[in-house]
Amino acid sequence: MIGKMSIAIGAALAALAAGFAAAQQQGAPLQVPAKSVPVPADVSPQMGKIIGLPLRANWDIHPKDGAAWKPVAEAGAEALRKLVPGMIERLHVKVERTTIDGVRAFIVTPDVVTPENRDRVLVHVHGGCYVLNPGEAGLPEALFMAGFGHFKVISVDYRMPPEAVYPAAHDDAMTVWKAVTRTTDPRKTAIFGTSAGGALTLAMVLRAKQEGLPLPAAIAPGTPMSDTTKVGDSFVTNAMLDNVLVSPDGFCDDGAKVYADGHDLKDPMLSPVYGDFTGFPPTILTTGTRDLLLSNTVRVHRKLREAGVEAFLQVGEGQSHAQYIRDDTAPETRAVFEEIAHFFDTHLTH
Amino acid sequence: MIGKMSIAIGAALAALAAGFAAAQQQGAPLQVPAKSVPVPADVSPQMGKIIGLPLRANWDIHPKDGAAWKPVAEAGAEALRKLVPGMIERLHVKVERTTIDGVRAFIVTPDVVTPENRDRVLVHVHGGCYVLNPGEAGLPEALFMAGFGHFKVISVDYRMPPEAVYPAAHDDAMTVWKAVTRTTDPRKTAIFGTSAGGALTLAMVLRAKQEGLPLPAAIAPGTPMSDTTKVGDSFVTNAMLDNVLVSPDGFCDDGAKVYADGHDLKDPMLSPVYGDFTGFPPTILTTGTRDLLLSNTVRVHRKLREAGVEAFLQVGEGQSHAQYIRDDTAPETRAVFEEIAHFFDTHLTH
Repeated sequence: MIGKMSIAIGAALAALAAGFAAAQQQGAPLQVPAKSVPVPADVSPQMGKIIGLPLRANWDIHPKDGAAWKPVAEAGAEALRKLVPGMIERLHVKVERTTIDGVRAFIVTPDVVTPENRDRVLVHVHGGCYVLNPGEAGLPEALFMAGFGHFKVISVDYRMPPEAVYPAAHDDAMTVWKAVTRTTDPRKTAIFGTSAGGALTLAMVLRAKQEGLPLPAAIAPGTPMSDTTKVGDSFVTNAMLDNVLVSPDGFCDDGAKVYADGHDLKDPMLSPVYGDFTGFPPTILTTGTRDLLLSNTVRVHRKLREAGVEAFLQVGEGQSHAQYIRDDTAPETRAVFEEIAHFFDTHLTH
Repeated sequence: MIGKMSIAIGAALAALAAGFAAAQQQGAPLQVPAKSVPVPADVSPQMGKIIGLPLRANWDIHPKDGAAWKPVAEAGAEALRKLVPGMIERLHVKVERTTIDGVRAFIVTPDVVTPENRDRVLVHVHGGCYVLNPGEAGLPEALFMAGFGHFKVISVDYRMPPEAVYPAAHDDAMTVWKAVTRTTDPRKTAIFGTSAGGALTLAMVLRAKQEGLPLPAAIAPGTPMSDTTKVGDSFVTNAMLDNVLVSPDGFCDDGAKVYADGHDLKDPMLSPVYGDFTGFPPTILTTGTRDLLLSNTVRVHRKLREAGVEAFLQVGEGQSHAQYIRDDTAPETRAVFEEIAHFFDTHLTH
């Protein structure tokens, strides 16, 4: 800790010294001084608690292969799994494990399916940098969508390192997608997911286009890892402010690289912002003002609009990466999922 | 400069020391270290030039009355006025000065008015913290809207300190609004403006509601000064990063206070985020990832959605406050105004 602080002080002084020389020079990097950032006043107590958490413990770990990631993923998953039963109860949903054409998945069914949602099915791909949130740990967002939106959701428990590397997660997601569209009218389906799940959502549509498969009627990529090459202004501006991802050089970058396993990170399958969005279904994007992937999200929004795609953006006040899928009792969480549900309801046929 | 740097270094060290104690404490302010922020790679050269400008000269001036603001406003206006003829030429519009029921205004007419826009009229209220951009200096955004969107625009050159204080600007805007709705079907009108003009746009609809006047068919408040009480996370997170407004305690705060002249800043007329948005027309909001008013904008977006209003948000990559109304040759500028024009075209009747 002392060592880290010394380095930080050194960096701060270097930055200030550089600022002294460069302050008036156009195009030079802007030297932004250190600042103390309180929890914003205009959020709910529940969201304030999440925003006020210290930087994620071990944000700067760098596991170099799937075997090294496994204990990290297990520890995180165990903590998350404990929260799932309470969520299931509060959200009035039920969860069944299943296998779809060999791919592990969960079926999440709300106790009350509204009449207009009776034949609709949503496909969910969870987040976690392609290495985290195996099994039930990937469920919270699926539960929120099912509970707040009254939709039936199929959540893909895709393969991750060390079990398999790229394109295993993508393949598993596509296997489920194909199975769903064999039994459900695609115009009654949507795909959604957050972070790596947001990138997978976009990649699934790109792949469905390439492979001539049906497209969903709408998608909801939440704060997508749309650029794993670290291009995007908020990678810098929100570094050390986003208390979840913390830094473009943190754990999540390593997770994506381990999954990519040497595959080109600029391939739209791994950085979908570089994909061709022509013909995409209506898209609703979610991010937060402190999100390290704020730029990744708004860049996708703009590119979709340039491709003529209907695309709606919502940005949560004070929220870091994916904090809208943490606490189902936060009114901000409900608002995000009700907005997505409204968007899906508008674009899916009955 | 040396003195400022010493203070900044002291503050940085204090912040780091505080961080040392508070790092693991939930709810404590987050200590964000100093950082060097380059111009992002994923913007056009024109926008990169604007983003790469040093912090606005004299951002920390604090003129205390209208007389003290006047020379500041004049100097700024003189620089801006020089850019207007080039904009008029490139955008193929013409500008006439006029007076509408005693209020100074400009009529901006594009050389080509599309058939669907023939009977449509937009009302523009310029920005500038209620003290800047008198006369032609307030025109750029009106020119962009007329040029890119092919709409006829009436731009209100409202009274500002020292000529008059609150509610003079609001009154002038409402006088023009009433005049326009006497001759134009309100379903064929929209109101737009940026910064103080974004706040005025929202305040005009609040006042029209209160006074039982017709509402426009759509509005486009750009990065509205929707909260002059300094609530909003980005007032902190984007401070010293936004190179236009720079700080919640900078020049713009003083400008708003001089205009308010002691009137309660929490009045929705001056902080429209606290207004009742029920029944508002469809609204398109614009901001940027580095904008000091990013939170002011996303909070309005959420409140509109909670009131059941159709509301669309666009966020410019890397942009500080209102940088989309600087350079008509930047593709990002065109994209913003084409998006607004598309929104207006969708919601205004022919």
